[in-house]
Amino acid sequence: MPTITHFTTHDLRFPTSLTGDGTDAMNTSCDYSSAYLCLHTSSPSLSGYGMTFTIGRGNDIVCTTISQLAQKLIGKDTQDLFSNMGATWDFLLSDPQLRWIGPEKGVIHIATGAVDNALWDMYARSVGKPVWKLVCDMSPEEVVKSMAWRYISDALTKEEALDMLKGMQAGKGQREEEVKRVGYPAYVTSAGWLGYSDAKITSLTLDALTKGFTHFKLKVGNNLADDLRRAKLIRSLIDDPVHLTEEERAKVSDPSSPRNPHHPSLSGKNPGPTGCVLMVDANQVWEVPQAIEYVKGLAEVRPWFIEEPTAPDDILGHARIRRELQNIPSNPNRVVPEPFSLAPEGHRDKITISVATGEHAHSRILFKQLLQASAIDVAQIDSCRLAGVSEVLSVLMLCKKFNIPVCPHAGGVGLCEYVIHLSLIDYILISGSMERNVLEYVDHLHEHFEWRCRIKEGPGGGRYIVPTNPMEGYSIKMYESSIKEYEFPGGSYWEGRRRDGTL
Amino acid sequence: MPTITHFTTHDLRFPTSLTGDGTDAMNTSCDYSSAYLCLHTSSPSLSGYGMTFTIGRGNDIVCTTISQLAQKLIGKDTQDLFSNMGATWDFLLSDPQLRWIGPEKGVIHIATGAVDNALWDMYARSVGKPVWKLVCDMSPEEVVKSMAWRYISDALTKEEALDMLKGMQAGKGQREEEVKRVGYPAYVTSAGWLGYSDAKITSLTLDALTKGFTHFKLKVGNNLADDLRRAKLIRSLIDDPVHLTEEERAKVSDPSSPRNPHHPSLSGKNPGPTGCVLMVDANQVWEVPQAIEYVKGLAEVRPWFIEEPTAPDDILGHARIRRELQNIPSNPNRVVPEPFSLAPEGHRDKITISVATGEHAHSRILFKQLLQASAIDVAQIDSCRLAGVSEVLSVLMLCKKFNIPVCPHAGGVGLCEYVIHLSLIDYILISGSMERNVLEYVDHLHEHFEWRCRIKEGPGGGRYIVPTNPMEGYSIKMYESSIKEYEFPGGSYWEGRRRDGTL
Repeated sequence: MPTITHFTTHDLRFPTSLTGDGTDAMNTSCDYSSAYLCLHTSSPSLSGYGMTFTIGRGNDIVCTTISQLAQKLIGKDTQDLFSNMGATWDFLLSDPQLRWIGPEKGVIHIATGAVDNALWDMYARSVGKPVWKLVCDMSPEEVVKSMAWRYISDALTKEEALDMLKGMQAGKGQREEEVKRVGYPAYVTSAGWLGYSDAKITSLTLDALTKGFTHFKLKVGNNLADDLRRAKLIRSLIDDPVHLTEEERAKVSDPSSPRNPHHPSLSGKNPGPTGCVLMVDANQVWEVPQAIEYVKGLAEVRPWFIEEPTAPDDILGHARIRRELQNIPSNPNRVVPEPFSLAPEGHRDKITISVATGEHAHSRILFKQLLQASAIDVAQIDSCRLAGVSEVLSVLMLCKKFNIPVCPHAGGVGLCEYVIHLSLIDYILISGSMERNVLEYVDHLHEHFEWRCRIKEGPGGGRYIVPTNPMEGYSIKMYESSIKEYEFPGGSYWEGRRRDGTL
Repeated sequence: MPTITHFTTHDLRFPTSLTGDGTDAMNTSCDYSSAYLCLHTSSPSLSGYGMTFTIGRGNDIVCTTISQLAQKLIGKDTQDLFSNMGATWDFLLSDPQLRWIGPEKGVIHIATGAVDNALWDMYARSVGKPVWKLVCDMSPEEVVKSMAWRYISDALTKEEALDMLKGMQAGKGQREEEVKRVGYPAYVTSAGWLGYSDAKITSLTLDALTKGFTHFKLKVGNNLADDLRRAKLIRSLIDDPVHLTEEERAKVSDPSSPRNPHHPSLSGKNPGPTGCVLMVDANQVWEVPQAIEYVKGLAEVRPWFIEEPTAPDDILGHARIRRELQNIPSNPNRVVPEPFSLAPEGHRDKITISVATGEHAHSRILFKQLLQASAIDVAQIDSCRLAGVSEVLSVLMLCKKFNIPVCPHAGGVGLCEYVIHLSLIDYILISGSMERNVLEYVDHLHEHFEWRCRIKEGPGGGRYIVPTNPMEGYSIKMYESSIKEYEFPGGSYWEGRRRDGTL
C-alpha cells in the first residue's frame, strides 16, 4: 500500500473582517482562516486533505504545529494507519514532548484535528466513499476501534459503545435512504451577526424563510435592549404565517410534520406558531451570574437555547446557568401572538431556556464532564477543535449515552463542508435522531471547495444535501486557485492589498 | 517613563533526556526547555525577562507565539502598563483573533505567561525590589487591581478579595521577617524519578535527609509492585531515626516543632514517626476508575497525596477520585513501624489519601472549578502554565477562599526560580500559612540563572532562601553564556552534538 511521502501546509486567510460577517460579542474582527494540510503518498492518485479553522492571526502558528505533527507520518504505510484509526489517533497524540504544550487543548489539539481529518479524508478517498459513508459502513467493532478512548472510560466503556452501536444496526439502511431523500435539517446564523443593520437582518431572515429554514440564530450580548429589538424583529418575521407558502401553512397544521409546533422534534425548543425556532448566542461574553440575569431578560422572545453563555471551560458554571434558566418567568409582553401558546394551561407564564455549548469545548474530556454535570441541553461539537473524526466519534457516542442532541458548530470556512459528514454519522449510525438535531449553516466561502456543501431550497428546503461523490472524502479539498489567491501573506489577494495600501 | 522598544526570544533546550532526569510515567523523554523572552525599553537600564517551560519539541512554537504577543507591547509606556497590571493582563489576552487558538489554554496561554512574567520582572526591577516584595508591599486595592478577574466572579468577588487582603494586613511584616529568618519549606522530587535505579534513589534520599528535607515525592504509575518496592525503600530511609542528627531527633519529640508528627502542619499528611512525609505522582497516566484502584494499592506506604491521577482537565474525575480515597483500608502490612500510629485508637486501619493537581491546570477557570467541586486537597499552581503573576494571584486568592493549601509546581528549568516568589506572596500576603504549604524543589539547571534559587542545608534546612537582591526582579534572567550554549538549534552545545553525530 502507498506510504506517506511528504506534505504541504497553507496559511489561508479570507478578508471577512472587511464586511462585518462573523461579528459577535466576543469576536469583533475575524478574518476567517484555514490552516490547511495536503498529505501526499507514494501513489500519485492518493492524497489526503485536512484543515483546521481559525479567525486570522495565529493561523501561521497552527500551520507550523501541523507540520511538526505531519512529520511523524512520513514513511508510514497508509494501510497500517487506516486499519486501526484509533491507534493512529493515539500515535498522533503520543509525542511526549509536544504533549506538554497542550495537553490535548489549544494549538496542539486543533493542529492534530487537521492531521487526523486529513487521514480520514485520505482513507475515505482510498475506498471511494465520502467520510460519512466510510464510517457508516463500518461494523460496530470497527467503529469502536476507530475512536479516541483515553480518559473517558468512567463515562463510557467499550462494551457499552459496542452495545449501543449494535442496537442501531437495524434501520441503518433505511435512515441512509431517508436522509438522502429529504436532506439533513439546517439552521441559519447568517442573518443574525451583531455587525448587521436591522434592514439587512430583515432581508436575510425573509430570504432564509423563503429557502425553507425554520431555525434562526441571533448573536447577542452587547446590549439587552438592542438584542431584544433585533430578536423581536426576527420573531415578528418568522412567526408570521403571511411569509409562508400555502404548502408550508398546511404543514404547520399537520401534527405529523416537523413544521407543526407540537411535533416531538420541537419539544423544548419554544417554537412559535409557525413552527419556527429562535436561538441566541453570546460567544462567551458573560460572567456566570451575569449570564443568568441577562438571559432571563430575553425570555420574552422565547429562545430555544442560549449558546456559549460564559467561558467554554466552565462546566460547573454552565450547569448552574442551566439550572437557573429552568421554569423562569416568561415576560407577559412576549411577542408570540396570543392566544397561541404551546405551554399547558396554567403554565404559560413559565419558560425554560436551554443551554448549548461546544464549539470551544477542547476535548472529549470536557464534553464528558458537561454531560456528567448535566450542564448542557445541546452539544455543539466542532469538527476541528476536537482532534478530528476519531475524537468526534467518542463525543457522539457519549452524547448518545447521555441522551443529549448534537448540533455541530459550522460557518467560518470549511466547517459546513466537514460537519454534514458528522451529522450523517450521528443520525445513521449513532443517535437515529435527525429532526431534533439541526445543523448550523452559514453561507460563506463555500466557493473555495471542490465539493462545496449544498443546501436544498424552497418548501421542504433549508436542509443540507447529502454528499455522495466517491472521490470527495471529507469534502474539504480546496481549489488550487483559491490557495494561490488567499495564501497569507504571499497570495495574490494579499499582495494586491499591500500594493494598493489597504493592508 | 521608558517605552517598550523591542524584544528578543530564545528557544533554549537542555539535553536532560540523556540522563533520565525528569522521567515519569507520562513524560518518558524530556529535554527541559525554556521559551525565553527579553523585553527591552528606551532606557538601557530597564529590561524585563520572562520565560515559559516546556520539555523540548514545540518550544519553537511557543517562542513564535511569544513574539506575536510581545509585538503588541511595542511602543507602550511602561508606567501605563505597570500602573494597572490587571488591565495590562486583559490587554495581553484581548486579541480577538489570537484568542480563537486558545482560548486561554495551551500554547497561546503559556506564551502569555512568559510575556506577563517579563512585565512583572521589569516592573519589580524598575522599583528595585524582587517580585515577591513588590506585590507584598502593594495595598489591598492595588493587589485587587493587579489580578485577572474575568470568569471567576461566581466564586470570588472583588469585594471579598479586598476583605481577605485587608484581613491579612496585620502580621504582614512579621511574616516577612519570619520567612527571611527560617526560609520557606521545600519538598524534594529529585530522588524519585522513574528512570533512577534503587541505588540512586537511596543515595539521593539520604542526601536530601542530610540537607534537612522532610517531604519526599516519588513518581509512580508504571507498575504497582515496582512502585511499592521503591516507596517502601524511601519510607524505610525517611522513617528511620538512625538517619537523623541528635538535634533533629529532639525536634521530632517537640510538639511545637513542624518536625513533630503531631504538629498541625502535618495534619492529613500521613507523616511517619520522624515527621517525614511521602507523596506520589502519577503524571496523568490513569483512567478515573483505574486511578482509584491503583492508589488504594499504595495505601500501605501512607502517601500524603496522589498528584495528577488522571487527565488534568477532568475536574469531576478528580472529585470522584478524592471521594473514593477517603477512609480507605490501610494495608496491615504497612511499613510504618508498629506500634507507632498517628490515627486515634480504633481507626488505625483506615487512611485518607489526598488529591493534588494543578501543574497542567490551564487557567484560573479550571482551578475555580477544582475548588468548587471539592476535587482537590492541594493546589499545585504553575508559574508559567497560568498566564503569569496576575492570573496566579487570582488562583492564590481563590485557594485562600476555599481554604486549600497551595504547593506550587517546580523543577524543570526556571520554575524553582519563579515559584519561591509566588509562595512568599501566598504566605506573607494571602494565606498566612507556610509550614503546611511546602514548595517543590528539584536540583536541576539552576546554574544558568544570574539569581539562581538557593536552599538552606543541614538541620533546619531543606528550605528555600528568600531572594532579596533589589535587581533580581522575578529571578529568571539567564546568563548570556547559557543562552549562547543551549539555544536550539544553533547554540554551541547543539552544534557540537551535530558535529560529533550524537544528535
